[in-house]
Amino acid sequence: MNSLKHFKICVILIMVSLTSSLANAQISNDITHNDALKALLIAKQKAEELNVLVNIAVVDAGANLKSFIRMDESFLGSIDIAIKKAKTSRYFNIATGDLGKLSQPGGIIYNIEHSNGGLITFPGGIPIINQNKNIIGAIGVSGGTIEQDRDIAIAGANAILNNLKN
Amino acid sequence: MNSLKHFKICVILIMVSLTSSLANAQISNDITHNDALKALLIAKQKAEELNVLVNIAVVDAGANLKSFIRMDESFLGSIDIAIKKAKTSRYFNIATGDLGKLSQPGGIIYNIEHSNGGLITFPGGIPIINQNKNIIGAIGVSGGTIEQDRDIAIAGANAILNNLKN
Amino acid sequence: MNSLKHFKICVILIMVSLTSSLANAQISNDITHNDALKALLIAKQKAEELNVLVNIAVVDAGANLKSFIRMDESFLGSIDIAIKKAKTSRYFNIATGDLGKLSQPGGIIYNIEHSNGGLITFPGGIPIINQNKNIIGAIGVSGGTIEQDRDIAIAGANAILNNLKN
Amino acid sequence: MNSLKHFKICVILIMVSLTSSLANAQISNDITHNDALKALLIAKQKAEELNVLVNIAVVDAGANLKSFIRMDESFLGSIDIAIKKAKTSRYFNIATGDLGKLSQPGGIIYNIEHSNGGLITFPGGIPIINQNKNIIGAIGVSGGTIEQDRDIAIAGANAILNNLKN
Repeated sequence: MNSLKHFKICVILIMVSLTSSLANAQISNDITHNDALKALLIAKQKAEELNVLVNIAVVDAGANLKSFIRMDESFLGSIDIAIKKAKTSRYFNIATGDLGKLSQPGGIIYNIEHSNGGLITFPGGIPIINQNKNIIGAIGVSGGTIEQDRDIAIAGANAILNNLKN
Repeated sequence: MNSLKHFKICVILIMVSLTSSLANAQISNDITHNDALKALLIAKQKAEELNVLVNIAVVDAGANLKSFIRMDESFLGSIDIAIKKAKTSRYFNIATGDLGKLSQPGGIIYNIEHSNGGLITFPGGIPIINQNKNIIGAIGVSGGTIEQDRDIAIAGANAILNNLKN
Repeated sequence: MNSLKHFKICVILIMVSLTSSLANAQISNDITHNDALKALLIAKQKAEELNVLVNIAVVDAGANLKSFIRMDESFLGSIDIAIKKAKTSRYFNIATGDLGKLSQPGGIIYNIEHSNGGLITFPGGIPIINQNKNIIGAIGVSGGTIEQDRDIAIAGANAILNNLKN
Repeated sequence: MNSLKHFKICVILIMVSLTSSLANAQISNDITHNDALKALLIAKQKAEELNVLVNIAVVDAGANLKSFIRMDESFLGSIDIAIKKAKTSRYFNIATGDLGKLSQPGGIIYNIEHSNGGLITFPGGIPIINQNKNIIGAIGVSGGTIEQDRDIAIAGANAILNNLKN
């Protein structure tokens, strides 16, 4: 079972590295579907390494859903949270956890969560940045602890431009 | 009036115990409508014992509404709360009161309530578990104090697998 | 299996007839939860006789959800339709099928379905009337053909006041 | 550009065929994320063959979003339509185009689209069936003509059980 898992990860990695080298030829200010798929699969691989079941969503520069996957047996309630984390991150070009520090009672943007059809402001949403330092989208992860969700989201964002640390 | 009430409870109990013995023949990973009705009626009986008026909702493994009843003169605003408590409990496989401890200001999932069309994270939503320890649905109760709501929900969940304590 | 089904129907019938005789002592202008449960169970029994899987919803005089059940394996999309049929019927004190005749293109209330958060205007929603000829609620059924849904809804409404014909 | 595209398709095909043979070992009544990803990628490949830009969504047996991709430059308005087509198809276990034949003016379920938060009843949503003939999910496609959307959805569903014809 474990060797099967490693085999699948290996196949995905080959695919990702191939599409990666092809995608590098052009730098876009909006995430491509190939890169959105790549971020998704790398994030999923990270989740499998951490042995945690998550939902993963990628939105584009317009904060519109670009790619999504829900791992088997992950929380049903995390579908919406993963998508909202990705949207929240792109809406304000910020990691959702950082936004949440400002939206606490007494904070400068207290209850901003009521806007935009519902925001999620705890960790797990991360902007995706290209080589020109433009924000081209965002990734949202939900299903694990907030630390796991954030680390998985960072792994996904780093699949596009490897500039973030856990 | 009181003897009438006891008579009705008695009739319901006969029905429940009969359908119970029939239902035990098969163990499903999704709550059946007979069990959803049974949980509802046992929870309602508990509410009558506590002399409190509540709304009771049961959702299935997919978090979809399976059975519901609103007791006469109970709060109209509790219809939605009972349903949302049941859904919230299944969305995250947790008692709603336990989720609420984490969503307070400064908590790790502060304001998670803004997801999934609105969550309810105070007590009264309880997962329903079968004999194989699978979560097959959830029950949500609203209308009394949070302690009463939780106790009534536990009574309903215990109608399926008697493993929870107040 | 079949004898089991008949046995369960029998048990439900005993319960219903007992609670029925108790409920007759008082005539309310709002459906009681006992009557809402009774309408639900009689409608469910009719569905079992017709061998069709349905969702059944009862709303009160205020068009608020009073009781609900979804039969195993019935359409997921019928949860909302059953509830909307019941609400639509009480919103306008009419059988939903009769409303639908007026909401067709060119009809006098064309596209009324866009109001009230979405109406359903094909058959399966029926007002529930008491002995004083007051409308005390409505029942909505979804999952079978429109003829089956209507017949099942009528059976449920007739459990309260036996005045409707198929 | 074209040889690049063929190369990418080739890589995806290798991945899909490999995960396919691994996935066949087990038959589930709910679509797995591997199969949901596979259906997505095969549908995307079909769209590339037809030279049309689409959004593709896969939902599970509970009508919950399982996987999604939006092709670059496809309609933004098709994100919601693709998801709604997949949900509609699972809500009623039917191809959306067949449902739409019944929801026309004068049809037996006219304006059913107003239920469930909005249904889409033109072609492009197809149930996904496993080898045991159980419906395990559905796929929805939007962005091309209705014929193209339907053909792409069928290609995706056939990736799981090859039993549908265009």
